[in-house]
Amino acid sequence: MPTTTVPHRLYLREDEIPTAWYNLRADMPEQPDPMLTPDGQIVQEEMLYPIFAKALAHQEMDATDRWIDIPGEVLDIYKVYRPSPLCRAYDLEKALDTPARIYYKFEGNNTSGSHKLNSAVAQAYYAKAEGLTGLSTETGAGQWGTALAEAAQYFGLPLIVYMVKVSYEQKPFRRAVMETFDAKVFASPSDTTEVGRRILAADPNNSGSLGTAISEAIEVAVSTPGYRYVLGSVLNQVLLHQSIIGLESKIALEQLGEYPDIIVGCAGGGSNLGGLIAPFMQDKLTGKADPRILAVEPASCPSLTRGRYAYDFADAGHMTPLAKMYTLGSGFKPSANHAGGLRYHGMSPILSKLYHDGRMEARSYEQTAVFDAAKKFAKVETILPAPESAHAIKGAIDEALACKETGEEKVILFGLTGTGYFDLAAYDQYNNHTMTDYIPTDEDLEASLSLLPQIG
Amino acid sequence: MPTTTVPHRLYLREDEIPTAWYNLRADMPEQPDPMLTPDGQIVQEEMLYPIFAKALAHQEMDATDRWIDIPGEVLDIYKVYRPSPLCRAYDLEKALDTPARIYYKFEGNNTSGSHKLNSAVAQAYYAKAEGLTGLSTETGAGQWGTALAEAAQYFGLPLIVYMVKVSYEQKPFRRAVMETFDAKVFASPSDTTEVGRRILAADPNNSGSLGTAISEAIEVAVSTPGYRYVLGSVLNQVLLHQSIIGLESKIALEQLGEYPDIIVGCAGGGSNLGGLIAPFMQDKLTGKADPRILAVEPASCPSLTRGRYAYDFADAGHMTPLAKMYTLGSGFKPSANHAGGLRYHGMSPILSKLYHDGRMEARSYEQTAVFDAAKKFAKVETILPAPESAHAIKGAIDEALACKETGEEKVILFGLTGTGYFDLAAYDQYNNHTMTDYIPTDEDLEASLSLLPQIG
Repeated sequence: MPTTTVPHRLYLREDEIPTAWYNLRADMPEQPDPMLTPDGQIVQEEMLYPIFAKALAHQEMDATDRWIDIPGEVLDIYKVYRPSPLCRAYDLEKALDTPARIYYKFEGNNTSGSHKLNSAVAQAYYAKAEGLTGLSTETGAGQWGTALAEAAQYFGLPLIVYMVKVSYEQKPFRRAVMETFDAKVFASPSDTTEVGRRILAADPNNSGSLGTAISEAIEVAVSTPGYRYVLGSVLNQVLLHQSIIGLESKIALEQLGEYPDIIVGCAGGGSNLGGLIAPFMQDKLTGKADPRILAVEPASCPSLTRGRYAYDFADAGHMTPLAKMYTLGSGFKPSANHAGGLRYHGMSPILSKLYHDGRMEARSYEQTAVFDAAKKFAKVETILPAPESAHAIKGAIDEALACKETGEEKVILFGLTGTGYFDLAAYDQYNNHTMTDYIPTDEDLEASLSLLPQIG
Repeated sequence: MPTTTVPHRLYLREDEIPTAWYNLRADMPEQPDPMLTPDGQIVQEEMLYPIFAKALAHQEMDATDRWIDIPGEVLDIYKVYRPSPLCRAYDLEKALDTPARIYYKFEGNNTSGSHKLNSAVAQAYYAKAEGLTGLSTETGAGQWGTALAEAAQYFGLPLIVYMVKVSYEQKPFRRAVMETFDAKVFASPSDTTEVGRRILAADPNNSGSLGTAISEAIEVAVSTPGYRYVLGSVLNQVLLHQSIIGLESKIALEQLGEYPDIIVGCAGGGSNLGGLIAPFMQDKLTGKADPRILAVEPASCPSLTRGRYAYDFADAGHMTPLAKMYTLGSGFKPSANHAGGLRYHGMSPILSKLYHDGRMEARSYEQTAVFDAAKKFAKVETILPAPESAHAIKGAIDEALACKETGEEKVILFGLTGTGYFDLAAYDQYNNHTMTDYIPTDEDLEASLSLLPQIG
């Protein structure tokens, strides 16, 4: 039981915000397998310098430091929108009639609308500190692009965003936010890159893909002096920066005299899940505690629950090194009727290793069930969740209902990564009962997995 | 100077949230003139019962109680999304190079995205407590409709929203949010009311107006057993509920050892401004302090700065009683190119009286200047403001720049009422340099003012 009265929302004081990120790899008894080049050589830090800022390449590769100081200028921006609240879901508990105590860490209260800003600020800072003069990235639904646009302009860095053409056309407001923060946004494929022009020459009506957008962004970064490429998930450096979510959560829970029995996070590339669970996984790895950790993914893009633990490219265009991870194959495309994010074919190598080693569980849900949970949550907790976040809500609700069956007063913590303001076309589908579910067949998965690189 | 280190965002503890609203009328030496019927009779509380819940009709009319307890169930919901943060605009101060200390009270961190929820929750609660079975309202841009949909479903009250047809068609996502909270949303004029059918018969392509939507909502409330009508601004009861904004602000500033020299709020119907200034105006009226109070309105809809202090209808359809207020005439329509809210022809009778008595100042800005300020603010404070809120930002920036000229270290407090997630079409116009300004001519104003009712 909590040792003090639990407020609906607990905000740490500004001086309680952690001043160092936690590097999960420092406590992993076995490290994730190294990145490889397509011909099987182990990637060295220096080989990443043309793509990433040096400090970020170092964070990507170096696994030894347990704590990494958050630079003062990053901390100053964190203080503008953090700490994020740790919320006690009293009304949800009541609606579910569960003896469980449900907590969620809400990362949506900033203009980018999600946790993505935590890493965007860090990546933009390091690029600026090294004297770089611009950044490039890709964005699908637009959450990452928005966060990075905000961070880049804060540091005075020009930003070029390749936005998947179908999203560019369907989500003009996402583009408008990025442009308000001075980003240059191109529909991808575009005529601004070699790869884009090649694709358009073959197919002028190509509607784009994340893979193509990544390829365009990397081409620009590598070919423009002073530019580097940045990515909002999957990478080790991103999980490092996102550890702020879990660290704040743990401090807040400690103040309440609580420790989670179950931690639930949605999982696309892993940026939120990896950050949320970081300090709790540390407890698990060091034997201090043994909470259950549950990754929730969409049934339409089930990398952990139905993918293969294998070396694969991080992009569809095969411009990146190979990473050992749970993957559906880099050519896998979730059905177009899949409304939310979490559309990535792979999973963070750190999380993949932890899952492979039995340190966490995974579960998948179909999207109408996820929107059921989203609506149930919105109605009592007055926050409209992003569809991605709603996967975690669904997982937490099911765990709380299981407690109702058993009568156990478990403590459930889940990550509410962002708001659904830009996902109302999907909510509209759901409200109108025109939303359908999609689960890839075994044959679909076999087809894309059969194209995995033969290596590692 | 502050007596303690000022955090970027100060959240009160949950147990510091005020438990009573403050009724400004209790300290006004002269009361606003009474509401009148169209034939000149003073409106009595009982005459409002068919339209408003009784407790709300009482709050509307009764001017004697200084403090009114916030019902426990309302307070419980306030605790889900309040306290809202008092923010110190360090980065804006730095960008402006001003010696002023700028604070803002940010009300946008809830699903409705604005301060409107503060009154929506109260109005829905009282309706439920009296055993009413449904609510009706109108919405233009959708902020109020969203907040009320959220509040009504929380208390299990069906809600019918008449949304101005042009907004209904241009802002399908606003509708989708309301529907997610189970509201029934009709494009107004609709075929669900007498007045709607009459208008459609005469003009099948009528694109609607706030006046028509109000008329439809009132017709439904009056003709449906158990239903009442609710309104999100202008009314005395709304200012009462919104006093929570100012009360929290004052407590937070006191903890910092600060008192504002200037308080700036945007002014449409007056719900935010009246709530923000309430306890500071009390100090002014009772001689405890003498802060400047500045209302900022759009140059395209300048009720305080260019309107007349006179009796007028609250709606274009002339179904409401008459109120003494600053008005542009109930037939006044701001130009269609006016992007933000604040489109109301009149102003809260309480604020009108205070302004008339010289207790506050008013200023108007054109919209491109307001969006300049919005963008400047967004880039350093990482919050994308609603266009309405940006009027207050512009006012605060100009006051801070004046301090730069004089070297005065003034304390400026402004109200940031909400976020601009649903206003990105306007931001897009601004970014593309297709936004234009509009100021009504003297002839325009004379024409609508000449139609004021000849009374009072």
